[in-house]
Amino acid sequence: MLILTLNTYLSKCQIDIMKTFLAITLIFFVTGCNLNSRKKMEESSVLGPITLVIHGGAGTITRANMTPEKEEAYHRQMKQALDHGYDILENGGKSLDAVVAVIKILEDSPLFNAGKGAVFTYDGKNELDASIMDGSNLAAGAVAGVSTIKNPIVAAYTVMTKSEHVLLAGKGAEEFAEEQGLEIVPALYFFDSTRYQQWLKLKAGEKKTDGISDEKKFGTVGCVALDKYGNLAAGTSTGGMTNKKYGRIGDSPIIGAGTYANNLTCGVSATGWGEYFIRLSAAHDVHAMMAYGNLSLKEAADSVILKKLPNLGGDGGLIALDRQGNFAMPFCTEGMYRGYIAKKGQAKTFIYKE
Amino acid sequence: MLILTLNTYLSKCQIDIMKTFLAITLIFFVTGCNLNSRKKMEESSVLGPITLVIHGGAGTITRANMTPEKEEAYHRQMKQALDHGYDILENGGKSLDAVVAVIKILEDSPLFNAGKGAVFTYDGKNELDASIMDGSNLAAGAVAGVSTIKNPIVAAYTVMTKSEHVLLAGKGAEEFAEEQGLEIVPALYFFDSTRYQQWLKLKAGEKKTDGISDEKKFGTVGCVALDKYGNLAAGTSTGGMTNKKYGRIGDSPIIGAGTYANNLTCGVSATGWGEYFIRLSAAHDVHAMMAYGNLSLKEAADSVILKKLPNLGGDGGLIALDRQGNFAMPFCTEGMYRGYIAKKGQAKTFIYKE
Repeated sequence: MLILTLNTYLSKCQIDIMKTFLAITLIFFVTGCNLNSRKKMEESSVLGPITLVIHGGAGTITRANMTPEKEEAYHRQMKQALDHGYDILENGGKSLDAVVAVIKILEDSPLFNAGKGAVFTYDGKNELDASIMDGSNLAAGAVAGVSTIKNPIVAAYTVMTKSEHVLLAGKGAEEFAEEQGLEIVPALYFFDSTRYQQWLKLKAGEKKTDGISDEKKFGTVGCVALDKYGNLAAGTSTGGMTNKKYGRIGDSPIIGAGTYANNLTCGVSATGWGEYFIRLSAAHDVHAMMAYGNLSLKEAADSVILKKLPNLGGDGGLIALDRQGNFAMPFCTEGMYRGYIAKKGQAKTFIYKE
Repeated sequence: MLILTLNTYLSKCQIDIMKTFLAITLIFFVTGCNLNSRKKMEESSVLGPITLVIHGGAGTITRANMTPEKEEAYHRQMKQALDHGYDILENGGKSLDAVVAVIKILEDSPLFNAGKGAVFTYDGKNELDASIMDGSNLAAGAVAGVSTIKNPIVAAYTVMTKSEHVLLAGKGAEEFAEEQGLEIVPALYFFDSTRYQQWLKLKAGEKKTDGISDEKKFGTVGCVALDKYGNLAAGTSTGGMTNKKYGRIGDSPIIGAGTYANNLTCGVSATGWGEYFIRLSAAHDVHAMMAYGNLSLKEAADSVILKKLPNLGGDGGLIALDRQGNFAMPFCTEGMYRGYIAKKGQAKTFIYKE
């Protein structure tokens, strides 16, 4: 219509000039888009490649206690979680989305002491804790002592995004989760016969000094992710300490102890003897030594896990990831289920000391 | 008998020499004791004089909302607590003992939102939180969401000293307290008609924007003490947020957020919008900036309360005390009930900005 109207009033020469002008504009527009997208990609690569680190708990994990089948199952499960998280990040998903999705997979696996597979309390129940933190704005959410929420990490994420609070506990947290439409399960969902046998043995006072008893304080899952926008996020989920009593809460739902993320420095998820991680404000301490003491990620993470923690009498491990994609996975126990992925299809997983 | 026997075998001259020797030994012994005790006193004075700092909550406390009688009551109650704590420290009591005794007084007073005088939850209950930390060994204890324990700070202390845990919550924590012989009270004990009226108004949606509503997130008591042995301890106790729901837990029972103590740097107790203190790991952050960034106590405390906290959108205050007896009491609200004592009979208390 416009061309027709123009034809009525303008000479052919004038129309040719306009056509040329339009073509040049179009070329500039297309080139501009390309430049913009290249600039965005460059920003991403300056901030570091997308990276994902996970742990599945630290403890007395020795080759003697293992079978090849069990080892293989752990490696397979961790690889599956890492691949899934990487796909999310590669497709433009946020680090928070990847952390929730990865921990959900680990919670749904009975191999780990989180979600399905959680250990039993003194009263024969499963009480779960989880927390998550967004390094871009220090937003955080957590739940403690919940028994009906299928995926505590989703509840923690929902506390962060849909409430004005950070930490909700017990029945109140369950009520909130239900109101928010999260998946609620009967107590039997968390029942795992291996965990139950472990608990029965512990209750009966058998094998007080063997692997089961030593492992009673361990087992947690965690994930730290760096997305293509340069944002860090960290999350942790646990079934707590076997045979725990008195509504004990460990470090997993405590922001600053079991979980911390800050784009200025790093994201951290811890696992181990929770009481010691709380007393050390372990996850925040890694951040603080980097922020104020100019330590590298590895130096800060090693200082907490290999010095301060054993000096105080505790043990465990952590995973930490910075904005350049550097990561550390120190532990002062015999083993820690752990892994990372920084390139598609190249997830690496580990159990023992290398 | 010995002298008699000696008399039989030794000459008078020999006995005289022995007597002189004994006298010299005695003189050396007495002088040595004096030197030792002087050395101990010097150590104490190097470590700083005994000092005690308290707060009774930060919030929209303005002269316009006050009566002279109410002001006087707050000053009197805080002075009484400070004097009592000082007496304990002066008589050789430990900083932990002083912190428990002082917070007990503030909990027992209906003036403060802790113990008797606690605010009401959404369901019309009182859910109390408290924590304590020993700066000499990083031991810590805390309870969250308890409704039957008369003095939550005593429960926190008992968790620290009589359990292998740091944080116990809800009914489990109450069961532990009962087993330990702590004073259990009926729900009605915590009932305070002023708090109840505040809650009723809030529930009815009245005065949504006035002082009561603004104050809903405030009110906590805390104490940091330095004893003559050079040890720091910190404690915090609260009735939480008025009308709180879903088993919300704030910063008061969270080691590293509302409470932290470490002889290397300082003791800290915080008050204010708990969610922000958790996200900042506020109490541990004061320690960390001193430990790794070489900031002074005042610089570190001001950085958290006057910069990071308002930058994130939160508000509140804290008290912090170092091993030299330096203290800081910054707040970014209109007022904070607070005070200190460093000399017998010379307690100083404050409410507004000076």
